[in-house]
Amino acid sequence: MSGQVNSKDTGLRGVYVANTGISMIDETAGKLFYRGYLVNTLTKYSTYEETAYLIMHGKLPLRSELDKFSSNLKSERKIPSEVLKFMMQIPKESPPMDVLQSTISILAHYDPDIYDQSKEAHYRQSIRIIAKIPTVIAAWDRIRKNMSVIEPDTSLSHTDNFLYMLFGERAPPKIEKCFDIAMIAHAEHSFNASTFAARIVASTNAHVYAAIVAAIGALSGDLHGGACYQVMRNLKEIGSPEKVEQWVINQLANNRKISGMGHAVYKTVDPRVKILDECIRVLTENIEDYKYYKMIKLIEKYTKREFRKLKGADIYPNVDLYSAVLYNLMGIDCDLYPALFALSRSVGWCTHIIEQKYPDPPLKPVLYRPLADYKGLYYGPNGGRYIPIDKRKH
Amino acid sequence: MSGQVNSKDTGLRGVYVANTGISMIDETAGKLFYRGYLVNTLTKYSTYEETAYLIMHGKLPLRSELDKFSSNLKSERKIPSEVLKFMMQIPKESPPMDVLQSTISILAHYDPDIYDQSKEAHYRQSIRIIAKIPTVIAAWDRIRKNMSVIEPDTSLSHTDNFLYMLFGERAPPKIEKCFDIAMIAHAEHSFNASTFAARIVASTNAHVYAAIVAAIGALSGDLHGGACYQVMRNLKEIGSPEKVEQWVINQLANNRKISGMGHAVYKTVDPRVKILDECIRVLTENIEDYKYYKMIKLIEKYTKREFRKLKGADIYPNVDLYSAVLYNLMGIDCDLYPALFALSRSVGWCTHIIEQKYPDPPLKPVLYRPLADYKGLYYGPNGGRYIPIDKRKH
Repeated sequence: MSGQVNSKDTGLRGVYVANTGISMIDETAGKLFYRGYLVNTLTKYSTYEETAYLIMHGKLPLRSELDKFSSNLKSERKIPSEVLKFMMQIPKESPPMDVLQSTISILAHYDPDIYDQSKEAHYRQSIRIIAKIPTVIAAWDRIRKNMSVIEPDTSLSHTDNFLYMLFGERAPPKIEKCFDIAMIAHAEHSFNASTFAARIVASTNAHVYAAIVAAIGALSGDLHGGACYQVMRNLKEIGSPEKVEQWVINQLANNRKISGMGHAVYKTVDPRVKILDECIRVLTENIEDYKYYKMIKLIEKYTKREFRKLKGADIYPNVDLYSAVLYNLMGIDCDLYPALFALSRSVGWCTHIIEQKYPDPPLKPVLYRPLADYKGLYYGPNGGRYIPIDKRKH
Repeated sequence: MSGQVNSKDTGLRGVYVANTGISMIDETAGKLFYRGYLVNTLTKYSTYEETAYLIMHGKLPLRSELDKFSSNLKSERKIPSEVLKFMMQIPKESPPMDVLQSTISILAHYDPDIYDQSKEAHYRQSIRIIAKIPTVIAAWDRIRKNMSVIEPDTSLSHTDNFLYMLFGERAPPKIEKCFDIAMIAHAEHSFNASTFAARIVASTNAHVYAAIVAAIGALSGDLHGGACYQVMRNLKEIGSPEKVEQWVINQLANNRKISGMGHAVYKTVDPRVKILDECIRVLTENIEDYKYYKMIKLIEKYTKREFRKLKGADIYPNVDLYSAVLYNLMGIDCDLYPALFALSRSVGWCTHIIEQKYPDPPLKPVLYRPLADYKGLYYGPNGGRYIPIDKRKH
């Protein structure tokens, strides 16, 4: 039935759907806060593990709290041998995000707390999922390349251990540091599509795995977590800096998206851009000679210019434009970029799932159930009468 | 950032989020239409396969169109032997909805169209998923009971074949007919939580499997597809008709949900109730002696009375109160009820995914990205300054 229409086919842009205490985006100032801390403060002083604690528990940990949190994560890194055996059987060409989705879904079968509806069980499930996602991603990248799977090393941090499992050896300290920073910068971002999908699933009272699996599905799309992968595909397709200008003009002329530019929320530069830009500079000796860096700067410049010409409005780069180049510098395959996003964001997802199911102050549980405006006839063809099949005509 | 607030922590009740041409709920008249046909018309004259065609293609098929559609479904029923082998390895106590979620996710690895973004490829993926869900559910029920898995029989219809694969023999004609009717009645219901989750995943440009897997997750929760399972658990817990009144009073006094009563959209009786009520009567010789039927009638009566007393408002039964009793009559295990819901609803989900990605008329693709109202301080503890870990105090 038709009625008051708040937002139709605009993807709920500008519509407030819930209260949250987890993160805040100041879209005009271009600031992102996790639990009241600027993301830039955290990437400067904190670590991924400490930031994960902050996001999940609402405050920075004491030393003893962080030690316990890290040790809980470490003890949950291994995936059951049955699940590893399953991964070995997956066709090698399967996209990493599809493999992450199916493998996390399978891990639910091995979680002893799956029927436990307590808040504590939800934290335990969350820790298991956050701990295992890096193991699954690294294992899959090696399995598909016919390389032996590397066991997690509990002497290493969450992010250092991931790079170790991926590469089969410790990454250089600069890369480890920049990767940890990138993971802090991606850990949480309020009601983006994947987090929203996770919250909708959680709102029906489903368990943490069911909701995370939905979030992974949403993140896999190239309008969301797939965008950084798309940036790198675009850079490879364009080929060289001198071809950027024409490519940008063509994309906009054909009403095609320029991945890495524009954002559904920010009305200015995405604050994560500066963080990743600095990382790229740390990892590059002669930044002026680095082709992909030159190219994203030109994409930014020409998209801004053309967008202003065509739409009379400003457009700004987002995190995906820079994360693509950063991950490429680290030597990570570009079809893994969305999975790195999932690795980092799993903390935000789990925290939102818990907030959805155990809001503070407590609320009566209510599942998401919006309305749609029906555009057909009330009674359809032939007044909604059923015509027997042999008497039908088109 | 705070701003215009449309719906916060009310699960988007009453908010129109999109246009659709698939189905319509007239919430005050208590009518449900698929593509302009009353669901009651379809359960009376149509079949599940024909209704599936109607939902997917927007019109009732000609004989030749239905034959082709049915034969496409039949040819896609089998699941790859690798996937069956995987299912054999799943711990036997895993909940059927979890197994359905992981298995459909795995099936994505074997779909040849996974990278194809054409509308046609989306139809092909949809047909494969709709065809295989019954096979997965029946196979899992037999695997967990250490019984041999039954191959699909292509001489049977979509729903008859499911019951055959589940039971290992044809069900009696009355049961086959009532099951087909129940599946028609559950096939589509606009923007419920699982369909909405599927559309959000699809809005990021993810593939059909990724979106269906999210929908299965949402359906698994006991506030959504799990409700009919919860109804049967409640009936068993209550035990006998004379205990219903006190149980209803206790539930409401403790602010606990009475599954099967009330609906997020309907302001009167759910129109599917009458359809399933008739099926229950067809399958029961002495309806007056049938304990569970008596009990749901009493749940309805006492909940209405108590609800009016406590809240001064009316409450009506929904489809789950009746489907639970109907499926029980058919001899189906109660933890499979949510999976039967998925079997039926897969058609609605796939159609919504396609409508989301290929709207008519075409729209610029836009992913769902609502806002949340942040309830914390702009700058957090200590003005958002980072205190080194060993100087922190709680």
